[in-house]
Amino acid sequence: MRLKDWQNFSVNADRLRSDIETLSEIGRSNDGTLYRPAFSPQYEEARIWLASRLDAAGIQNRNDAAGNLIGRVGQDGVPCIMSGSHIDTVPKGGALDGAYGVLAALEVARVIKEAEIEYPKAFECVAFVDEEGRYFDGLGSKAISGDLSLDEVNTACDAAGNLLTTDMLAAGFDPNRILEAARAADEISAFVELHIEQGAVLDSLQTPLGNVESIVGTSNLWITFNGESNHSGTTPMELRRDAFTGAAEFTTRAREHILKQGTSGRVRITYGIVELEPQSHNIIPERVRLFQEIREVSDEIKMQLVEDSKHLACEIADKHRLSVDFEHIPETKAMAMSKRVRSAIADSAGKLKLELHNMPSGAVHDAQNLARLTDSGMIFVPSKGGLSHCPEEYTDWRHLEQGANVLLHTVMRLIHD
Amino acid sequence: MRLKDWQNFSVNADRLRSDIETLSEIGRSNDGTLYRPAFSPQYEEARIWLASRLDAAGIQNRNDAAGNLIGRVGQDGVPCIMSGSHIDTVPKGGALDGAYGVLAALEVARVIKEAEIEYPKAFECVAFVDEEGRYFDGLGSKAISGDLSLDEVNTACDAAGNLLTTDMLAAGFDPNRILEAARAADEISAFVELHIEQGAVLDSLQTPLGNVESIVGTSNLWITFNGESNHSGTTPMELRRDAFTGAAEFTTRAREHILKQGTSGRVRITYGIVELEPQSHNIIPERVRLFQEIREVSDEIKMQLVEDSKHLACEIADKHRLSVDFEHIPETKAMAMSKRVRSAIADSAGKLKLELHNMPSGAVHDAQNLARLTDSGMIFVPSKGGLSHCPEEYTDWRHLEQGANVLLHTVMRLIHD
Repeated sequence: MRLKDWQNFSVNADRLRSDIETLSEIGRSNDGTLYRPAFSPQYEEARIWLASRLDAAGIQNRNDAAGNLIGRVGQDGVPCIMSGSHIDTVPKGGALDGAYGVLAALEVARVIKEAEIEYPKAFECVAFVDEEGRYFDGLGSKAISGDLSLDEVNTACDAAGNLLTTDMLAAGFDPNRILEAARAADEISAFVELHIEQGAVLDSLQTPLGNVESIVGTSNLWITFNGESNHSGTTPMELRRDAFTGAAEFTTRAREHILKQGTSGRVRITYGIVELEPQSHNIIPERVRLFQEIREVSDEIKMQLVEDSKHLACEIADKHRLSVDFEHIPETKAMAMSKRVRSAIADSAGKLKLELHNMPSGAVHDAQNLARLTDSGMIFVPSKGGLSHCPEEYTDWRHLEQGANVLLHTVMRLIHD
Repeated sequence: MRLKDWQNFSVNADRLRSDIETLSEIGRSNDGTLYRPAFSPQYEEARIWLASRLDAAGIQNRNDAAGNLIGRVGQDGVPCIMSGSHIDTVPKGGALDGAYGVLAALEVARVIKEAEIEYPKAFECVAFVDEEGRYFDGLGSKAISGDLSLDEVNTACDAAGNLLTTDMLAAGFDPNRILEAARAADEISAFVELHIEQGAVLDSLQTPLGNVESIVGTSNLWITFNGESNHSGTTPMELRRDAFTGAAEFTTRAREHILKQGTSGRVRITYGIVELEPQSHNIIPERVRLFQEIREVSDEIKMQLVEDSKHLACEIADKHRLSVDFEHIPETKAMAMSKRVRSAIADSAGKLKLELHNMPSGAVHDAQNLARLTDSGMIFVPSKGGLSHCPEEYTDWRHLEQGANVLLHTVMRLIHD
């Protein structure tokens, strides 16, 4: 019985580790930091190296029209299970963010290839281009999901003003053909992404694995309280219109309300930017600009929380004789992971006797885009101290191996289901 | 009877207004703004002009060893009543801050001189040098009060690094002799300063005059909450150490406590500087630095409020798993105005049928230094909209005349008491 065959499968941990270590040297600067932005020479070097690893394993591979590198094992003309992540990085990035998910999928492809058995579905491993958004957040996975327009592509540029279209052409891709990367829904039976958590939940729980229930949606709002600046010595309290008095009371009360009314243990509220004008020791603040970020697994609750926070801001502004303005920033919607994929992950972890924690993902991932096209899921492994997007990003090798084995078994279950 | 003579005295409003208008053009830049920093060429021009006005009125005058310009009318060898303020300004200053008090005292001197009557005490009008603290807050009035040391003088420099001693020498004053400006307590029977309020209390009450009860003391404290920066998406609320959460709750609760426990209607609490690190939309603030300024008429209460605020900061830091640091900045002590001078002001306003509001001064003035040497008081006139230290600084001419007349009558009462 086939089922029994693959249940003894396991990844080659040494091979995986060697790949992770090799890739982590591509794009490393003289100062020791790592940076592989999409379509850069460093990125091209990494992509060519990855293709050579697929070639060496005898796995057919191709670059799609968007610049995603895709390897495929199994029969032609059947649906596939897809897994992968990205090999681009942020500036001064870590060795695991994205790269781990791509190289674990490569390892899964090698294990399947080496089994020399014909399975009912194929397997594809993928490196999505520009997940980190040098030009466009999740460009490659959006291209595959069919969630791109040529208008967006033609106007996208990086922080230095370089056009995506120019840089794609230089890397050998025709930007006018990018929409051809879109896949039909029936070609991809399911998608599963293995990724470091980039947060401290698993590390603090001492749990080796996370099963992502949903990727949270984000609402961003600039809130500006406007009062009047006056000398702090000569202006009695009752004549003041102190914008910071309102802003401080608002953030405290809004935070309490949002924690109480948001999805328990899932909602997140952050005031990361607080700007005072004129920011002077003896002048009453005239204006305070706050950046409010709400992350929620329920879009409906999130919308309500944003409305509640706006009402509260108005109420507190009134109380302190201030005015208040709002500036909305485009929001991202929450995306639930597929029950089918989550079950496959849970069954695989169970069989391998590995503890699994159900959790949301607070960060955005390629799986969020693939979920628009097909059943999608994500497996998290712990990030030491929650650190990511920095050179200190680290996960125990033992956890990286366990994660890759759960991915392998999840893929095999999905191939057979 | 002498008393009756002076009760008909009044200032020459046209002469006063003409002086104010003339002085307001000295130190005016091509861009229309006014700036007369101490010992600058503009300041020297103003001082020479003021001496020429004293000369023109036949009032003997001299520069003391600190650079204060002092005019005197009346007998030699008797105590004097002193009045004055300063003619230096802040950058982009107004026409009235300081200048009004000096020119009104000049007008009082002229009225007394013109009476040609021998009074029991002399009168001195004074322009204190560097009240605005180019080198040293209240340099001239501290020199007269004997509240200066040569060490302080020798190390004082302006924001550009120019030494006070160098610039004094250039202006014709020997800094080594500055302590000779100190006066004996029995030479000055009382001091009274007329000044614009620089706040909005009188303007909002529509009251023409303020009688200053005390000049508030100030406690300045840097409070730093320290937490941990993490990604706002991947870090659940319960794992956060968000420095702004603590800072916002602290300022709200500290403000409430201070308003409740401070001297009613007199205490002032301001958080004018709030700095977040790293100040990024999706990173939890690691550090928040707050500047806390408490102004109080009671030094004892002020000390208690500072202690209370520190305890509260520690309690709230604990609650949010933060640490907190404090950095004290040298404080100024509150200074009560003399009952004798306040009574003379109140009696004068009453006789002139002008409404008078008893109030603290939230800003620092030369009278604070003179109060260490002799009985001192201050008269305020309204500042339109509370504006000061800016070109829009304005007081109705009617109020300026009323203030000068109350000053004149107060001086005459003190001369006779």
